[in-house]
Amino acid sequence: MKMHVKPIGVIRTSFKQKENTPIQGKQSPDSIGTIVVFKEYAPGLKDIETFTHIYLLYYFHRAGDVVLVRPTFLDDTPHGVFASRHPCRPNGIGLTIVALKKRKGNTLIVSGIDVLDGTPLLDIKPYIPRFDCHRNASNGWVSHVKNRRKPKGRE
Amino acid sequence: MKMHVKPIGVIRTSFKQKENTPIQGKQSPDSIGTIVVFKEYAPGLKDIETFTHIYLLYYFHRAGDVVLVRPTFLDDTPHGVFASRHPCRPNGIGLTIVALKKRKGNTLIVSGIDVLDGTPLLDIKPYIPRFDCHRNASNGWVSHVKNRRKPKGRE
Repeated sequence: MKMHVKPIGVIRTSFKQKENTPIQGKQSPDSIGTIVVFKEYAPGLKDIETFTHIYLLYYFHRAGDVVLVRPTFLDDTPHGVFASRHPCRPNGIGLTIVALKKRKGNTLIVSGIDVLDGTPLLDIKPYIPRFDCHRNASNGWVSHVKNRRKPKGRE
Repeated sequence: MKMHVKPIGVIRTSFKQKENTPIQGKQSPDSIGTIVVFKEYAPGLKDIETFTHIYLLYYFHRAGDVVLVRPTFLDDTPHGVFASRHPCRPNGIGLTIVALKKRKGNTLIVSGIDVLDGTPLLDIKPYIPRFDCHRNASNGWVSHVKNRRKPKGRE
């Protein structure tokens, strides 16, 4: 069974190179992005401005080979791809949470973005802390790692 | 541009009918599910058991027609599809956060699931509160609605 997905828009950021793209949006709260939703889908944005945060689902269009176990950007220990947010995944779907600053028609201005410029947008969903905030969840293996810059030359 | 996605596993739950499936997992913390990851992807689960919560990305395989603005399960006011978690979306990708109770090889036992039995699994990502918990986010239009059962006969 194969299923199709198609872009519903494009994500515009200042990040042209993988190496300079933040590992996670919470590490770059001031990085601004512009989400351009194609006009035929713009009616679906009704009431989006009632939310302060949104999920972006997008396609890792510049990801390299899928490797099921490998070191991540956060540390140098090999982890399973499903225990990490690494871009090279069996289905190359990325997920990030951004702050929604402003809507102008079919365009959303967001902050805290960690996505390459030109990334195809697949979906937008509201971030609803009533459903999505699990304060007591563990940080798993990530609890042991400190923020750092993305290692050079690593896919 | 069309992109392909493929199932990496299947989600098994007790929910055979849409009408009986919970609207959100936080409303059904005791509902148990079994995530069967196909064996060829099982190595990618390494270290998943260090997390208490995980994201499941899945395909809404029984969704009806896409309508960009419509009433949701939560209330009777029409909202844009990107301002809701409605299953009938331009790309039918669902997102839920579940508690990971146990791993047995390529199978994960989870709780708080709100997904139909037989749903194709697309991805698993760790839920990392350090990155994903935005306590001060607004609940948007959802802040005004009370928990209720899914209305009958509504797609």
